Amino acid sequence: MNEADAQLREAVSRAVDRAIDDGEVSALTELVKTLSSADVVNLIERSDSEHQAVLYRMLPKGQALEVFERLDASLQRDLVGALQDDTVAALFADLDPDDRVELLDELPATVARRLLKGLPPEEREKTAGILGYPLRSIGRRMSPEFVALRPELTTAEALVRVTRHLDDAETVYTLPVADEHRKLIGTAGLRDLLNAPPGTTVAEVMHQAHWVRASDDAEAAARHCADLKVLALPVVDNENRLIGILTVDDALQILEDAESEDQARISGVEPLRRPYLTAPVGSLVRSRVVWLLVLAIGATLTVQVLEVFEHTLSQVVALALFVPLLIGTGGNTGNQAATTVTRGLALGDVEPSDLFKVLFREFRVGLSLGLLLGAVAFAATSMIYDRQLGTVIGLTLLSVCTMAATVGGVMPLLARTIRADPAVFSNPFITTFVDATGLLIYFLIAKAVLGI
Amino acid sequence: MNEADAQLREAVSRAVDRAIDDGEVSALTELVKTLSSADVVNLIERSDSEHQAVLYRMLPKGQALEVFERLDASLQRDLVGALQDDTVAALFADLDPDDRVELLDELPATVARRLLKGLPPEEREKTAGILGYPLRSIGRRMSPEFVALRPELTTAEALVRVTRHLDDAETVYTLPVADEHRKLIGTAGLRDLLNAPPGTTVAEVMHQAHWVRASDDAEAAARHCADLKVLALPVVDNENRLIGILTVDDALQILEDAESEDQARISGVEPLRRPYLTAPVGSLVRSRVVWLLVLAIGATLTVQVLEVFEHTLSQVVALALFVPLLIGTGGNTGNQAATTVTRGLALGDVEPSDLFKVLFREFRVGLSLGLLLGAVAFAATSMIYDRQLGTVIGLTLLSVCTMAATVGGVMPLLARTIRADPAVFSNPFITTFVDATGLLIYFLIAKAVLGI
Repeated sequence: MNEADAQLREAVSRAVDRAIDDGEVSALTELVKTLSSADVVNLIERSDSEHQAVLYRMLPKGQALEVFERLDASLQRDLVGALQDDTVAALFADLDPDDRVELLDELPATVARRLLKGLPPEEREKTAGILGYPLRSIGRRMSPEFVALRPELTTAEALVRVTRHLDDAETVYTLPVADEHRKLIGTAGLRDLLNAPPGTTVAEVMHQAHWVRASDDAEAAARHCADLKVLALPVVDNENRLIGILTVDDALQILEDAESEDQARISGVEPLRRPYLTAPVGSLVRSRVVWLLVLAIGATLTVQVLEVFEHTLSQVVALALFVPLLIGTGGNTGNQAATTVTRGLALGDVEPSDLFKVLFREFRVGLSLGLLLGAVAFAATSMIYDRQLGTVIGLTLLSVCTMAATVGGVMPLLARTIRADPAVFSNPFITTFVDATGLLIYFLIAKAVLGI
Repeated sequence: MNEADAQLREAVSRAVDRAIDDGEVSALTELVKTLSSADVVNLIERSDSEHQAVLYRMLPKGQALEVFERLDASLQRDLVGALQDDTVAALFADLDPDDRVELLDELPATVARRLLKGLPPEEREKTAGILGYPLRSIGRRMSPEFVALRPELTTAEALVRVTRHLDDAETVYTLPVADEHRKLIGTAGLRDLLNAPPGTTVAEVMHQAHWVRASDDAEAAARHCADLKVLALPVVDNENRLIGILTVDDALQILEDAESEDQARISGVEPLRRPYLTAPVGSLVRSRVVWLLVLAIGATLTVQVLEVFEHTLSQVVALALFVPLLIGTGGNTGNQAATTVTRGLALGDVEPSDLFKVLFREFRVGLSLGLLLGAVAFAATSMIYDRQLGTVIGLTLLSVCTMAATVGGVMPLLARTIRADPAVFSNPFITTFVDATGLLIYFLIAKAVLGI
């Protein structure tokens, strides 16, 4: 957490590296004993693949499972490759069904089939159930191990039922309540059961249930859980039958992955599927090069616009001086609007149907920004160069800011409407669009004002 | 969640708006009854201030408190202004101490003092305790209402103690264990207590405790809670004495606010303190104009660089055509690197001490990207224009990509080292820096290759 902890962690990390490099097994075993699972995960995420496997093999069995569960799926795959077959089979059987499915998606098909075959029948069935839901749906990430209550139970009977499942349920703090057809009718907290006077039934203490459908998008479901600030959400099938539970810790993991993806996409990087320092340079290059090329090809639009005005440019070379400033400001204005609206969408403050409200707001915001920046630029340019150039720059900023804010604000909503990811669609494309349009506006205004 | 729900929500939202505008109180009361607290929060966040107050007054008392707790502090302030004094005093007394402090920070000092004075003494003391911690520290956001256990208690005795505090504790699922000097020595889950064989002591079932210090930064503490995927973290003072608890739902709220802030800062907007649609246009303009001006002033650096090369430009006007493309690609490359490393820092995958590892990685990534993009650009420009211009563009992209990735990757680490927020410091500044440096490289290469 604080400075001293960070330094201590650094020192341990270096000591572990040294012990592995020098093959000092006993020192290493002692060192690893002092570490919490979270520390070990952190160490593994920052080591190269050889060190990862050595470190992992040093862990006592119970901790090994805990550490394995917390690693990214890509690192799990690497470890599975580095460990012996029987170790892997035992580990695989100990995982929760949802974690198992995540790992299966990462592994080569032959390895996945072999591992599935080695599972006890009951575990295999639960795993297959989860595997049946579409990729990226919450059905894939939910846990099928929950404790369901019936409404007619007394709270004392319910507590007995909970007590019997303390070992195998994913959570016992949020208890879905279902009727005789397994339809979800509410949820009760363990706290509510404990707090109820004797003789109360579950029906009397349960609340109206929030829930998600197994086919819902995993990120949307996790966001729903985080928005409601609940510890767990029941998951139902299309007939509202209870089939699983999404706990807040799994929701947090899903959101963490999704945020990484969004942030990456906003700046035009394919999301990395593993921690930064363990990713090979080649995969970093691959994650970026496609987007860079796409954006660069988009940017050739600006070359074409400038070519059209090459004659104007050669007459007044001074016009070229302001090109980076003007398109930079346009891009910034557009990105500001896009980020604000994208964030509003993610939090549910803005809905796609608010299109015209957003359009009108951003038009006014852009106009105000354009008036302010345009006035400043007019004054400064008039003083340093001349009033004519000042007029061109001022008017251009006014128009570009208005256009950029409006386009930037509306684009994420349009992206959502056509079901594209607003984070992917917005920022890089807005910049390219605003660059080209801004140049066009600039030279048209210049030609009109300077009379060339 | 899904399409149908969103449409339903839209319809209800319109019906509520209409009922308020037409003053149909009974219809409104009926409508509001059908809504969950989450729905009402959503409605309030998307209404103007008049509708907000009307809507809020329609709520039954229990729901009103729940809705109020979930609103952003800025909206809470607006509501306090719109409600009658005795309603506010009752509401204020019902809030949890941590929520109360958040609201107090928003209110004018005179109103805050009056409300504090109206509290029962015990509640006032708890509130004052929280108010003593620095702004933005987790001490401000923790709950002082927890159930602490002693290690020598049997699990049965511990359960009795938990049962007595079911009504007033923030959580009973995570139970900090403290010794006779109130020092934190571990935590036990309610599940562990329930699962223990008779006669077991708390000391036997408790785990090593993760914890945060009250003076720790609130965002770092919340991130710690989310990283560990625990339901609650004990909060201790500088002597390791237990003084509060941070629950995962509060951690989620803190992270949500922090993410909004980071995303805003990455694209140069001051974070909005209220939902987008309820923010006045004037405050949207204010949140953006300062950054736009700062960035625009930074961008005048590009005007100055270009001015130095005005003579070169007037001789080969074609050079101007590629300016937006080149600096755009440089900016994109830098942003990609900065975003990846910033995200790594936030998740703890990268530490400031990894500076040279990151430098070396990003240098190689940038060089590879530059070689690829440079080769493509050389081929294309040579074909369309001529080989000399192709050489200039190709070499410039090679140098600019290498420089941009290296600077972009290292900047967030430097920002962290000087204790600035990497999200603020990185992207906008990288773009400005890369723009100016890129132009310099471009014209130096052009002069060398074209011999002008």
